[in-house]
Amino acid sequence: MDNLPKCGANYVPLTPLTFLTRASNSYANRTSIIYANIRFNWRETHERCCRLASSLRSLDIVKNDVVSVLAPNVPAMLEMHFAVPMAGAVLNAINTRLDARNVALILKHSEAKIFFIDYEYIDKAKKAIEILMSDFQMPMPLVVVIDDLDSPTGIRFGELEYEQLVFQGNPEYVLENIDDEWDPITLSYTSGTTSEPKGVVYSHRGAFLSTLSLILGWEMGTEPVYLWSLPMFHCNGWTFTWGIAARGGTNVCIRNTTAQEIYSNIALHKVTHMCAAPIVLNIILEAKPHEQRQITTPVQVLVGGAPPPAPLLEKIERVGFHVVHAYGLTEATGPALVCEWQAKWNKLPWEEQARLKARQGLGILTLADVDVKNFKNIGKCAS
Amino acid sequence: MDNLPKCGANYVPLTPLTFLTRASNSYANRTSIIYANIRFNWRETHERCCRLASSLRSLDIVKNDVVSVLAPNVPAMLEMHFAVPMAGAVLNAINTRLDARNVALILKHSEAKIFFIDYEYIDKAKKAIEILMSDFQMPMPLVVVIDDLDSPTGIRFGELEYEQLVFQGNPEYVLENIDDEWDPITLSYTSGTTSEPKGVVYSHRGAFLSTLSLILGWEMGTEPVYLWSLPMFHCNGWTFTWGIAARGGTNVCIRNTTAQEIYSNIALHKVTHMCAAPIVLNIILEAKPHEQRQITTPVQVLVGGAPPPAPLLEKIERVGFHVVHAYGLTEATGPALVCEWQAKWNKLPWEEQARLKARQGLGILTLADVDVKNFKNIGKCAS
Repeated sequence: MDNLPKCGANYVPLTPLTFLTRASNSYANRTSIIYANIRFNWRETHERCCRLASSLRSLDIVKNDVVSVLAPNVPAMLEMHFAVPMAGAVLNAINTRLDARNVALILKHSEAKIFFIDYEYIDKAKKAIEILMSDFQMPMPLVVVIDDLDSPTGIRFGELEYEQLVFQGNPEYVLENIDDEWDPITLSYTSGTTSEPKGVVYSHRGAFLSTLSLILGWEMGTEPVYLWSLPMFHCNGWTFTWGIAARGGTNVCIRNTTAQEIYSNIALHKVTHMCAAPIVLNIILEAKPHEQRQITTPVQVLVGGAPPPAPLLEKIERVGFHVVHAYGLTEATGPALVCEWQAKWNKLPWEEQARLKARQGLGILTLADVDVKNFKNIGKCAS
Repeated sequence: MDNLPKCGANYVPLTPLTFLTRASNSYANRTSIIYANIRFNWRETHERCCRLASSLRSLDIVKNDVVSVLAPNVPAMLEMHFAVPMAGAVLNAINTRLDARNVALILKHSEAKIFFIDYEYIDKAKKAIEILMSDFQMPMPLVVVIDDLDSPTGIRFGELEYEQLVFQGNPEYVLENIDDEWDPITLSYTSGTTSEPKGVVYSHRGAFLSTLSLILGWEMGTEPVYLWSLPMFHCNGWTFTWGIAARGGTNVCIRNTTAQEIYSNIALHKVTHMCAAPIVLNIILEAKPHEQRQITTPVQVLVGGAPPPAPLLEKIERVGFHVVHAYGLTEATGPALVCEWQAKWNKLPWEEQARLKARQGLGILTLADVDVKNFKNIGKCAS
């Protein structure tokens, strides 16, 4: 048939920003964010992101400008994953564990126009900006301090503050049109273990597809209550910064990944899901008796990085955490291989189950190809 | 940042064909298809599709040629959803309930090069071909008969037979490269209730995205056992022709959607999921005592079309079927709105739950926009 019509002329671009619009329409009154005594619902989160995006525009942020942020897993960090691209800009979430020199290197390489700094990291940020200006001869970026939302400290660095930008913004802001789904949405840097940090750009399309793939790979149902133990600066929290909106879930934000914060938030908010590096499993297991709480419904934990040893897996399952293991890297939008559990494995002895869990066999649905020995294809713009 | 790299130059196209490749790699030994006494695993299904695709190429099928099929939910129908596009062609699955004249109209409009006919529909197909040649002055398409795989009848029409094409094909066939994800994968026709049937083209990209969205919207986990009660010719079985491969599940094929076939297959193969028009719910409820079986684990049923009345929903839940209601249309790759259940509704009285179930409120994740009053946007090439 020669005259088959071709779709795509007026196509709607793939972008995770639609997850927020949809959440604010479909799950308006569901809790979107919990942080200490703070609660937002999805309508409010959408409105706060519109306000922040419009404020960024009035600060002269234009398409493809980079906005950097140095912050723990506080609500502002989550909101910026939507608000920054809603302003047409690219979010650069910086690893808070880097030293001032590496932070400076990232600010230089990314040519950050605005630098959002959580009040706890002002000292490190100040040093980084000094290095940026003196060693690298770069101009100082515009600085915005993120004060604590639950217990404001009043600590400032420069004149701008996050809540003030949200307050001043336009709640009716209409987001910058995305005319190309391959446009960048975030810029992340590898941890730089072998050389200087390396920049990795995610597109709107890649972020959209990886988000759906990870929800599918992990079999995350609707209305998850997700605990933010994995840093959001780590591959955008393995895409769950966007994924919880896609599922109409609740983001439980915590400032510190301590045993006490983890246990008390799980018990208080009935957490269903969390992601973690293997070290977090140790933190949980080494909790002091007064920090522990009884976990009544198993928490689904997606563990990345090196495979956790079988004895550790066995112990953590016994205190109420159901582990799924994943492997990935910054260049592949985070986890690219997930150990999809097979029902027949339930009949195996426990040691064998733990051995199988420590593998991470299956490429996620949108990964084009992977070679576990060489990783030659894993960095491809597969999605 | 002006020098942000742009992804997409060497992009991997989105196509549901990758679900089959992935299934044959990742779930090689899992059962892919059950039909009466026939069993295939995903490795075999992949091989059979490669064979059929290569045979189609040797029958001079080239890119964008249309291959039509008139068949019930037998294994061949499922395999063709992969094999036909693997040959670069476009699958046109024809509603078996249409009369010969409407079948002829579709063969004419689609310019079908090959016409696959299940042995049960040879009479209707013969009449349609007569109309095609006499009334429409079109040449006769190449005909392939699909004999029953479990109990071959030997009934033929022309020289070609489905299993013979599979047998003769090359198991090492490398699929036609998809250079554009907007290329057509299937061509379906609306039922033509108000006028002549209307053709709707799905792209590889649209099929891929709709498949993932429906898995997500329905919260279908891995390893589903899916009963083919919904005709595959109906919007490609609401994309589950591809979706069961994506989930590493099992397709339970049945020739007739009778109470006996439904009940016995559910009991025998531990069916977890099925899609259905509301009429199928009536078929189940009106089963004679000797046709019924005890359903021990609830079967998830996605029901489309007009909202089922609340008393019907209540009855069907009581015999072991858990209903989720969806609404869509051929122009929107099948279901576009799914009634996503909210946990808080579990606490409501049963009548109220049934009322909520009969709604179909939420756009699926890849639907760009929808206006329930006007449907003005629903036909867009959203994905």
